[in-house]
Amino acid sequence: MNLIDFQTQQMPLFEDFLINTLKEEILPNSTLYHAMNYSVSAGGKRIRPLLLLAVLKSFGKNPKAGFEVAAALEYIHTYSLIHDDLPAMDNDALRRGKPTNHIVYGEDMAILAGDGLLTYAFEVIAISPLSNDKKVKLISALAKSAGPTGMVAGQVADMEAEKKQVPLKELKEIHARKTGELLRFAAIAGGIIAEVSSLALNALEQYALHLGLAFQIRDDVMDVIGDVTELGKETGMDAIHEKSTYPNLLTLTGAIEALNEELGQAKKALNYEKNNEVFDASLLNEIADMLLIEER
Amino acid sequence: MNLIDFQTQQMPLFEDFLINTLKEEILPNSTLYHAMNYSVSAGGKRIRPLLLLAVLKSFGKNPKAGFEVAAALEYIHTYSLIHDDLPAMDNDALRRGKPTNHIVYGEDMAILAGDGLLTYAFEVIAISPLSNDKKVKLISALAKSAGPTGMVAGQVADMEAEKKQVPLKELKEIHARKTGELLRFAAIAGGIIAEVSSLALNALEQYALHLGLAFQIRDDVMDVIGDVTELGKETGMDAIHEKSTYPNLLTLTGAIEALNEELGQAKKALNYEKNNEVFDASLLNEIADMLLIEER
Repeated sequence: MNLIDFQTQQMPLFEDFLINTLKEEILPNSTLYHAMNYSVSAGGKRIRPLLLLAVLKSFGKNPKAGFEVAAALEYIHTYSLIHDDLPAMDNDALRRGKPTNHIVYGEDMAILAGDGLLTYAFEVIAISPLSNDKKVKLISALAKSAGPTGMVAGQVADMEAEKKQVPLKELKEIHARKTGELLRFAAIAGGIIAEVSSLALNALEQYALHLGLAFQIRDDVMDVIGDVTELGKETGMDAIHEKSTYPNLLTLTGAIEALNEELGQAKKALNYEKNNEVFDASLLNEIADMLLIEER
Repeated sequence: MNLIDFQTQQMPLFEDFLINTLKEEILPNSTLYHAMNYSVSAGGKRIRPLLLLAVLKSFGKNPKAGFEVAAALEYIHTYSLIHDDLPAMDNDALRRGKPTNHIVYGEDMAILAGDGLLTYAFEVIAISPLSNDKKVKLISALAKSAGPTGMVAGQVADMEAEKKQVPLKELKEIHARKTGELLRFAAIAGGIIAEVSSLALNALEQYALHLGLAFQIRDDVMDVIGDVTELGKETGMDAIHEKSTYPNLLTLTGAIEALNEELGQAKKALNYEKNNEVFDASLLNEIADMLLIEER
């Protein structure tokens, strides 16, 4: 199965699940529900859920077994965007082509909508039909990836790196946490749910780490060469915030080269010692290829 | 054992655990760690951990078995205070006698310190030595109590009720969520860890619901009659924020009567059908008595 067919088959089902899982639990008509739903429904690429579900498929499992964890992951990603956009943080007014949460609902409600999504994510996993052993592994890994040693630490390091030039090594470390951790969790969570071998889990982790870096380099590059309609968010913001970016450190051409190098490494990681484990790398290779940018 | 002895014996041990559990996991010297630690170390009554540990003792169990969950609960309580104090929320400058988190670390860091504590709480439970079955029950209950159907919903309802007078019934519902849910979790979590009967679990829940209401009424009353040195926070703030409070709705004397009535109900709930279950209500009765205010 190729990626387009997989997306066409699975992602509308997942999208319904993502929205309905929020709807069923929250009191109807409450402002909180609307604020949470606003940002979750705002679209986005759903790259983390796609990755998690594609891992399940790659190991011959039903992607539906990962819907709860993929939804939890997307709620956490969404909360991080809502808080990231706040006036006290990046102060962004536009996200995914729509006004950001605090522009619509106010700063107080945006803070609480983020808090609500973050907390609810753990509930969704805890009440899922997975075994308790898997739930505990997944919750522990998700909290570690999203929390003060993972994504939140990356966010702090990113803030601290603003308005100064940081060396490439530090930039990579910041992004490994800020963007990489949730992608790493997506890949590993698929592996945990599919009960893959430890060699496979390690391969998935390596794949995701390279993919995560590629993802961030791409984001930096698109902030320079993309346009607002295509991206659904303002461009040129990194320059305004005086952020250290890959194009700054490596030049635009160098950044695009580094991006494509990471994607090559990601695909290479999937060639692990299989020992008769059922695994088809084609979907994950295609996900890596999605991020390619043609050198110009 | 009386409450003073229990506190003297257990709470310093718990306090060390609470601080050290944060220290071990977070990268040393990072601003994030300092911001998280600042608010966790700021003291406070630790009433939620005390309640959880006292429940374990009441059922003849070692309170130490509840340290991880009690710490997680206190991290979540602390995050809620940090976010609650933000300029976009209650805009408080003083908490527990010290400048609030955002005054010291800035708004951006305070938001992230809160996010970090909330996320970390779930990791602490997930990696605790409890059985996976208990962990899943506890995480599910905690997320429900703290999340968008629990504490966060209460916070939103509280915000929405500002600057208008709400009837007593609505005020009770707001506080049942905003303050009551975490106290309810504290009592129930102790019961889950101690593996108590379902009758006992129900009794603990009823006890905690009344205790939670008493707690909030007391808070409102102390905002009128307390002083800043004793409380460690500014008083008279409810009037400034035009909040609906029990003293407003019931008069000061009426509010104190209602408080003492709730405490009576809390203690009464502990008289459940024991069927030979080991249970000594004295610690929980004393915790209720701590909240009594003499009528003047």
